[in-house]
Order: sequence, then C-alpha cells, then structure tokens
Amino acid sequence: MGKSLTYKILEDHLISGELVPGNEIAIKVDQTLTQDSTGTMVYLQLEAMDIKEIKTELSVAYIDHNTLQIGFENADDHAFIKSVAAKYGIRFSKPGNGICHQLHLENFSIPGKTLLGSDSHTPTSGGMGVLAIGAGGLDVATAMASGTYYLKVPQVLNIKLSGALSPWVSAKDVILYILKILTVKGGVGKIIEYSGEGVKSLSLTDRATITNMGAELGATTSIFPSDEITFQYLKALGREKNWVSLEADENAVYHEVIEIDLSSIVTMAAKPHSPDHVDTITNTQGVKVDQVLIGSCTNSSYKDLMKAAAILKNKKVHSDVDLGISPGSSKILKMLADNGALSTFIAAGARILECSCGPCIGMGQSPKNNGVSLRTFNRNFCGRSGTKNAEVYLVSPETAAISAVKGYLEDPISLGNDIVIEEPALYAANDSYFIFDKNIDNPVSMGPNIKPFPINDVLPEELEGKIVLKAGDNITTDDIMPSHAKLLPYRSNIPYLSQFCFSGIDEEFWKRCKENQGGFIVGGENYGQGSSREHAALAPLYLGIKAIIVKSFARIHKGNLINSGIIPLEFVNLNDYASIDPMDTLDMKNIKASLENGGKIEIYNKTKNTTITAKFTGSSRDIDILLAGGYLNYVKSTMPTVATMEEI
Amino acid sequence: MGKSLTYKILEDHLISGELVPGNEIAIKVDQTLTQDSTGTMVYLQLEAMDIKEIKTELSVAYIDHNTLQIGFENADDHAFIKSVAAKYGIRFSKPGNGICHQLHLENFSIPGKTLLGSDSHTPTSGGMGVLAIGAGGLDVATAMASGTYYLKVPQVLNIKLSGALSPWVSAKDVILYILKILTVKGGVGKIIEYSGEGVKSLSLTDRATITNMGAELGATTSIFPSDEITFQYLKALGREKNWVSLEADENAVYHEVIEIDLSSIVTMAAKPHSPDHVDTITNTQGVKVDQVLIGSCTNSSYKDLMKAAAILKNKKVHSDVDLGISPGSSKILKMLADNGALSTFIAAGARILECSCGPCIGMGQSPKNNGVSLRTFNRNFCGRSGTKNAEVYLVSPETAAISAVKGYLEDPISLGNDIVIEEPALYAANDSYFIFDKNIDNPVSMGPNIKPFPINDVLPEELEGKIVLKAGDNITTDDIMPSHAKLLPYRSNIPYLSQFCFSGIDEEFWKRCKENQGGFIVGGENYGQGSSREHAALAPLYLGIKAIIVKSFARIHKGNLINSGIIPLEFVNLNDYASIDPMDTLDMKNIKASLENGGKIEIYNKTKNTTITAKFTGSSRDIDILLAGGYLNYVKSTMPTVATMEEI
Repeated sequence: MGKSLTYKILEDHLISGELVPGNEIAIKVDQTLTQDSTGTMVYLQLEAMDIKEIKTELSVAYIDHNTLQIGFENADDHAFIKSVAAKYGIRFSKPGNGICHQLHLENFSIPGKTLLGSDSHTPTSGGMGVLAIGAGGLDVATAMASGTYYLKVPQVLNIKLSGALSPWVSAKDVILYILKILTVKGGVGKIIEYSGEGVKSLSLTDRATITNMGAELGATTSIFPSDEITFQYLKALGREKNWVSLEADENAVYHEVIEIDLSSIVTMAAKPHSPDHVDTITNTQGVKVDQVLIGSCTNSSYKDLMKAAAILKNKKVHSDVDLGISPGSSKILKMLADNGALSTFIAAGARILECSCGPCIGMGQSPKNNGVSLRTFNRNFCGRSGTKNAEVYLVSPETAAISAVKGYLEDPISLGNDIVIEEPALYAANDSYFIFDKNIDNPVSMGPNIKPFPINDVLPEELEGKIVLKAGDNITTDDIMPSHAKLLPYRSNIPYLSQFCFSGIDEEFWKRCKENQGGFIVGGENYGQGSSREHAALAPLYLGIKAIIVKSFARIHKGNLINSGIIPLEFVNLNDYASIDPMDTLDMKNIKASLENGGKIEIYNKTKNTTITAKFTGSSRDIDILLAGGYLNYVKSTMPTVATMEEI
Repeated sequence: MGKSLTYKILEDHLISGELVPGNEIAIKVDQTLTQDSTGTMVYLQLEAMDIKEIKTELSVAYIDHNTLQIGFENADDHAFIKSVAAKYGIRFSKPGNGICHQLHLENFSIPGKTLLGSDSHTPTSGGMGVLAIGAGGLDVATAMASGTYYLKVPQVLNIKLSGALSPWVSAKDVILYILKILTVKGGVGKIIEYSGEGVKSLSLTDRATITNMGAELGATTSIFPSDEITFQYLKALGREKNWVSLEADENAVYHEVIEIDLSSIVTMAAKPHSPDHVDTITNTQGVKVDQVLIGSCTNSSYKDLMKAAAILKNKKVHSDVDLGISPGSSKILKMLADNGALSTFIAAGARILECSCGPCIGMGQSPKNNGVSLRTFNRNFCGRSGTKNAEVYLVSPETAAISAVKGYLEDPISLGNDIVIEEPALYAANDSYFIFDKNIDNPVSMGPNIKPFPINDVLPEELEGKIVLKAGDNITTDDIMPSHAKLLPYRSNIPYLSQFCFSGIDEEFWKRCKENQGGFIVGGENYGQGSSREHAALAPLYLGIKAIIVKSFARIHKGNLINSGIIPLEFVNLNDYASIDPMDTLDMKNIKASLENGGKIEIYNKTKNTTITAKFTGSSRDIDILLAGGYLNYVKSTMPTVATMEEI
C-alpha cells in the first residue's frame, strides 16, 4: 500500500504515537516561525520555560503585522522580540523585509521539513513540499523549547489536479473554487495533498497561494509535491542545495480524493463576508468598487505583482478607486523597482505601501463607510478591514488590477489574450533585513505595555457559572478577539485587550464576564475559525471563561483553548443548542472523572432545570493539560526543569 | 526707495489697506491648498458659505496626512473632500501622490503668485518666489469663496546670504542655524526674504527646505527670488511658461537685515524637544539611535533622497536601527524607482513607506519607549512622534543616512569627499493621482464621523469664568490639540476630539471645562506655536473657552482664535502672569467698549480680589469678528449672500 507524501513526512518526523487518523502523535519540528502580533506572547512563554537553547534547526521571528506603529507599543514589541531572538539565536526579520510566509518560502523553506508557525497561514510553505502547520503560540514556544509538536493524526484528502488553467484564471481562482466546494469547514481534521498532472502547470508561488488559503478550509495544512518547478524556484533563490524530490507513492492511499480539472475553473470571487461565499466573476461583475488592494501572504509573489503591473501598464487607476499595493518581500520589491514594474504602478496612480501584511490584517487602509473593497487577500470576515459595514471581495491579482482600472468588478478575461509572466531566473539577493545574533546573556527589552500573560488554575471538580454569551455558527477568531490597527498594538497586554473580547458582537461581553466572575460561552458550528491567535483563548481565560460548548470547533482554536485550560465541549445532541439561553446558570460536576472516562460531561441547567450532555474529544495528554489548568501548568508540573523538557 | 520682493508681491495683490507694517490689508489670493487633516473643516466651512463657485485661479485639495486609515473615518473624510472638490472644480490629489507642499512646488506654484494654505508649512512654495502663507481653515475657505485674505502687514526681515555651503552641509543645516539664532519666536510678525549671492548656490528645493522651516521661526512666510535656478526647475517639470524673474530692488529697504556666510555654517541638529534647540553635530554626535526617518515636506525632494541613496549605496542599515523613507511625491518615487536609488534603499534594508507626511505628523512609526529618533522633519515637539518619552532630533538627510548606517548620530563629514547630486533635467511626467472634475451638482459625501463644527455666540458684555488651565511658555498646537495617528481620524468630529484637548498636559482639562461651563486659559510666551490647525481653537470653543490670556501669541493660532470668537488677550504687565492661579475666577466687564477703545480690558480676579489689565491687539475688522462671535457669524451678519461676499 503506497504512502501519501503527508504520511511520508510525518513518518520521517515521528517521535511517538501511531500514524492512525485520530491518534495523537508527537513529531519533530524542524523549523518554527512567528510574526509580531502573536510573537510577543510566544516569546514571553518561551522565556517562562527558562531554557538554555532552542531545539529546532531554524527558528525565525518576523515583524510584518504591527508595522504602522501608531504608538510606542509596536516598536516596544519589536524590540522585545528582537532581544529574545538574539538570546536564543532565532533569526530576526526586521520590519520592511516583508511578509513572514513569502519570506520563509524565499529564504528558509526546505521540502520535506516540518514547520510550525504561530500564524494560521503557515501552510504557505506547503507549496514547496514542507509540512507546514499553523498553531497557537504556546505550541510554537514549546516546539522551540523541545523540538516537538503534538497533533491528532489528520486524514489526508487528495486533490488530484488535471489539465491546466485557462487564460486569465489563476491559482487564487483555484483555491476559491475549492472553498466553494468544501466550505470553510471542509478541511477540518484533514491535510490536503495535491497531486496529478495539473500540478506541473502551477508555478511554485501558485502552489503557495493554494496551500496558503487551505487555512480558510480549516485544514491542518496543505501540501504539494517537490518537483522540477520547486528546484527551479530554489535555484533562482540560490538555494538549489535545499532541494529534494518529494511525492506520494504512485499507489498512495488517501482517505478521500477529489479530482479537479484545472481547465474547468473560471475566474472567481469570494463575496462578503466569508472566504467560501464564492461565485464566478461572471455572476459578480459590475459591482462599483471604491478600493482595490493587492498583496498579503496569499497574493504578493513576483508573478502576482508582475501580472498586475502588466495589466496596469499604460493605464490609469479609475478616479473613484484607491489602489494599494504591498509587495510580499523586499526581494520582490527590489526586483519590481529594478525591472520597471514599480514604475508602472506609480505611473498608473497606485499607492505603494510597505512590504508587510498591512491591510490584510486590518492594519490600515480601512475602506470608507459602506465601501466596496476588492482584495487579493485570504479573509473577508465582516469588520476585519477595520470598517464594519465595508463589503470586501476576495479576488485574484488579475481581477483586482483590471477592476482598479475600470472602477467596477471586472473579469480579466475582458483583456483578451492572456499575459505570461516568466518566473525570474535569479531573485534579487538581499538579506539586509535579517539579523542573526546569538548571545544567551542578551538583555531582554520589556516595554511597559508588555504584561504577563494569564495562567489558569488547576481544573476544579465542579464548574458553575452563567452563559455569558450565546453565539451562532462560524464564529471567527476575529469575532472573539478583534484584530485591527487600533487593537493589534495591545497583543502583548491581555488585561487591556480582553476589554474588546467579542466587542464586535457584544460590547458588554467583557463587563458581563467581570460581573459574573466569568462563566460559559455557547456557540454553533466551526467555532473559532480563522487565525491562529491564542489571544482568542487568552482573553476569555483572563475574563474567567471556564468552558465553551459548541456544535463543532476549528482545529487551532480548540488547541489554544486546551492550552489555556478552557474546556472545549461539543453538544452530543446538536438540538440542545436551542435549549440554552443567555444568562442560564450551568453546573458541571465530576469533571475530572468525566474527562477521563470518555469525555462525556453532564451539564445541569439550573435555570431551566434540564440536563444536557456535551463531550470533550481529545487525547489523554489533552485531558492532562486541561486538568493541570493549561499547558504551562502541565509543563511545569510534569517537567519542572529544562533537562526533563529535553526528554519529551 | 527700493522695494523688497515681499512688498512688490503684496502691492501687486493689494485689494484694500495701506502697505505699512502693522496695518491690516486685504490681498488677492491666487491659489489655495488644503490637506486632509485640516481640509474637512475647510470644506465644511466652504459648504456653509453656500457659494456657486470659487474665486481663486487654482485651488487644490491634497490627501497626504491621514493616509493610514485605521478605521473608516479617514476614507470617509477623503470621500467628503473629493466630493466637495468636484463640486467647485478644486483639483483633488489622491492619497499616494505625495505631500502637498512638494506636490504644489512641482505642479502648481508660480513665482509672484499668492498662495494660502491650511497648513503651516505652506511657505515651502516661497522657495519658488511665491508669497505662500499658512492660515486657519476658515481663512482658506473664505479665500476660496471671496478670493481675499486679510493680514496684518508684516515687517520684512532680510537674510542676506553670501558664500556657498561647505561639503556635506545642507539647506537643512542652514535653517537649523537660523533657528538657533532667531528661535521659534524670531519670525513672529515678519516675512523673511532671502537675497544675496549665496542664493545662487542653493537649488530650488534647498530654498524650499529653508522657507518650509521658516514656519518654525513663527514667520508669516519666507521667500526667495525667482532666478535662473527657478527657471531650470520649472523647465525640468515642463512648466517653464510659468517662470518669471523676480527679485527685490537693488536698494530695497528692509526692517531688519541679517547677513549669513553660508560657508560658515556647519552640520547641525535640533535636539529634543524644540526645533530651535539647535547644536552642531560635532556637539551632539555619538548618541545611539533607534530609528531614522527620511522624508516630510522639509526634506523629501529628489536631491534629498538621492543624496541619502548615495550615502547608503553598498552599505547596510545598522541592525539596531529602523530606517524609514517616505518620498515627497509620486514623481520623485518614480524617478527613484527608475534610476536605481529605490533599489539602493531596499538593498540597504530600509523600510519604504508611502509617499505622504506619514510619521512627521505622528501618522505611524512611533518610536519605542525612550527611543531615539533622527528625523529629517521640521518639528520635534515632545510627544509629536506618538511616543511621549521619545527623543527626537531633527537633522539633514545626509546626517540621517550616515547615522542609520552607523547606529549612532554621526557627522556626514566623516564620509570624506562630498557627493554632488545633479538636479534632474526632466522630472517624471505623472498626473495619474490628480483628479479635476467640476460639477456644481456633485453630491457631497458625508460620513457619520463628520460632525458640524462649533459656532460661537455673539460676544456678551461681560464674561465670567474660572481659569481652567494655566500653561507655560511655547505651548504648541500639538499641546493644545494633539495630533497623531489615533486622533487625526477625528479631525472632522470636534465633539469627540475636544475630549483630548490639552490631554498631553492635563488629561482632566476637558472634564474641568465641562464642569465649569468653560472658562479661561492662561499661558506664557509664544502661545499656539506650530501648526495651522484651527482645531486648536475649535476644540476650546466647543469646550466653552471664552478668552485666552498669555504673554504673547503665535500668528496663525491667534487668527484662529479670533475666527472662533475666542478673545486672544496679552498681559500688559507680564508679571501679572504670576498673580493668577488655576481655578481663580475672573470677571471681564464692558468687553465691547474695551475692545473698541484701544483693546485694553480690565480683568477682575474675584478669587484674589485683584485687578489686572490685558490687551487685545488686532484690526477693527478683527474686533468686529470677535463681537460677532467668530468669523462665520461675522460673514453671515455682514454679507448673507454670495453676491455681497464677492464684493469684499
């Protein structure tokens, strides 16, 4: 029986456990990455582990999120991260260098390696055959400290590609098409492995666009084989020595297979307010557009921006449109400057923004009230742009560029013959933004906005409290812990940040938590989809949330809840969701025994005088973590010293 | 008796009054400019005047301040300004095009014309022989509506330049040197006119750097002759037809003359926290630097940035330094992209920021706590960077660039032979960011954050109230109405903004005003220095401030107070400042008669049972404005219709 590429890499990295779907295994983590909006917490936690050195082959701390610096907080965070990076020999990428995922692809990703990142779009490196997983910050800190990551073995969903893309149809349209089929829950518990003849028609950064937005499917990660195209990309970066050939066995067995003929895909857009709210451009075109933004870890590759430049050549941005361009990396920016593409953007009237995540994470460029914004980004959750009532569409760079000229959502097919962009034979050599210092005695720089992170108590035998929030389906981490230019500076300050927990849905939430000493949250399907931010668990922890009872969870968020010692519970009978009302008082008894004996917990609704059942699904290790009151307590109780931690 | 260039232009534009220092005259305004942080108020006021067309030859609305858009407010303001611009045929400059003053120089400034701008650095165009004055928004709105501006005839201070600059000494060092001599009050009530052989050694943008920071001297404006260098600059921009030769008569008589030998000037820095806190680089070098920023309307010309690029060529930004570069205009950015300079910046590891005012007005890039920031900007008031305890130094682009490499404040002279930058023979042609629509029926776009501006009541015969604030010397408009990325979005919302009035000095100020129904403010010398923002008058007006009693005022702010109907009073006996304490109750009787009879007002201090005298100095028109309760009431009472307004 042949092996999938995914299981080959997992097997290569297996430390403990059996490679059976649903089983928990520990794998060796070769590389980690962090960005600055999750990074301060990661490095505070790493500091708390009091280690002497990191156990990964390579760890990189990128600054790409909080680059606007509208107060001292961001620069303080950057200084803190830089100081910890120097202490442990973690590579530091200065602001201005670009977006972590694009930079990691260019500089560090190696086919066949494992990468754990405190950013949900870490799977971007999957485009290069890396098993690249997004995780909570504590997982990444632990991976640095121990070299290990625990995960439930996912099923492997094979997407077999045939054919080649039609003119003007791009990798973005492919992943939007897949989102349309699978929805934002379609990848939960799965790794998506691409194969087939169609793979050869996709450039490396095309593949990275597809694996990047696998995050929006809820997948653990997505991965492409490593082939001649991978080799050429690495060679253009002067890293051909990092290349290895990687693919699934010919007779590989998958848990699920979807076949897609690339030539059947047409240009697509994700309409407001979900990445899976996908329709064809044919059905959406004509919408008047106020803003167009090209960039983000999804679509800021050389090819993406060159294609946009080719479309904008000798054209002018429509007078009613603001077109912003944030290149993915300083290498790409330099190449665009050198080859005239940047000049083309300026001649067209585009706004040249810094190489960073920028508006994708709500860091600036919020549209006007009721504004329509076309973005080449990966998420269009309501309010994520910084403007609650903005209408955000996710599209390809080609669609974005032509729409910026026209002033309305337009199909690039209207341009006639497609434009072919040659992959660069040689990328610009530029490492001026990277710092690699190592000195275990380097003093840690700690600004006044950097506050200790909350730590839970040992789980008691009984939990009683009120339902302080009843939420619906598909609650995003943006809903739980909003992330935009005004709040991102406080990612290192949970006490302050927690005042904005769920503020987009219910401004009184944090006060209600305070008044009731915390309590419980009830939610629907796919609770916690979106980013990897553990702040969506740390803020509820700080506010006293004990358990969250939902119909189903998104993977990373569930892990973050466990790490925080908040019990993630699922309704055994989905209809029970309807039976609970806000401010009902719930009582859970014998929690420890319930968790240890199958995970089913009886919940008595004191207000309604009814009893329902919810279940916890997780490994025995997960249960131990919950009982200990979260991961840091667990680590401390089981392995108080570094020496023992090394033996995990 | 020969005439100064200043008086020649004033004479050419004289509508009423006599050209005698201290007299009030009305002059014809040929051009106006606004930027977006003052612009929304200007265009709200213009709308309130209900005119059919503007009376200037050219008016331009630039978007350059609020470009980060960390919420819907900025984009709403931009849409509002764009909609009013289209209504009246005002040229609109989209965000990304660059900084108003640099753009105006490049595209619209004409020697010998008058320009009124709602930005204190409007005198930048003085480098091209334009009589360019910064004013409050209401003055600019009125100038658009009527073509007229009232001002007190200033004295003319002639700065006669001889010699030429030494290697590595730049125009920035010249104006810093002049600031050291004259201080931030040295230009109050004066126009500074440059002449002499030394002028010929300065490029047009060098001259603009010098006139730009004339604002920091408190001068009404600064002006250079228009000569062959002016011609070459205009020719390079394809505007040679706009050139005229302009200079003072050979035997021109000035009120004051200062002679400066350019060759005697050395490299300089303004130390924290005032632009006149100037010392030589020799005396300041060695300070460890965290951040270096190159840009702003002072130093973002082609030559400035090319010089910085030449210094950074084949060098790397120090690992402890963040270097940010914001080019002055899209033309310049395009030229830097085309000629490889931008590539040099990227290769060195610089952060390429949008063409905008950016960090100069606290719009991002706030340094870390206690961070040291070298900036090529014009103001280093405490807190203006967005970080209260940051140490900001103002330096030349040359000093900034070499210091970014070294990691400490360094003299560019250490580089050896100076680098000569050739002025471009032809600037990049690029007008894609300009919009020129005209349609009086264009609907006005009004976002929910755009609130009506406050209007005062007719001045009563008696004013009684408490001293709600006693401030010291050199209070800046940044002190009165802080301006940074978090507050700039609220420039269109005085009720909200007023809660932050004086917040850097006294967080309780606005509450105290509320509790006491406003009152009076006492201050020291040079009260209201800094920017032209009328928000520094509108917020106190909204909070109920009736009069401000100080030792002396800065020009634009005094005008803004009059326009708001707040009485600007000066102590007759400066020692009386000491006799007043916070929360003393003052009573002013017979105000109308006092103002009309010489301006001396008896102020009875009820708390102390003492009486002091303060005086109002201003024209009879100023008094009429105060009596009417501010300029808009005055305009309405005296000229209710557009037809009569035309006859001013």
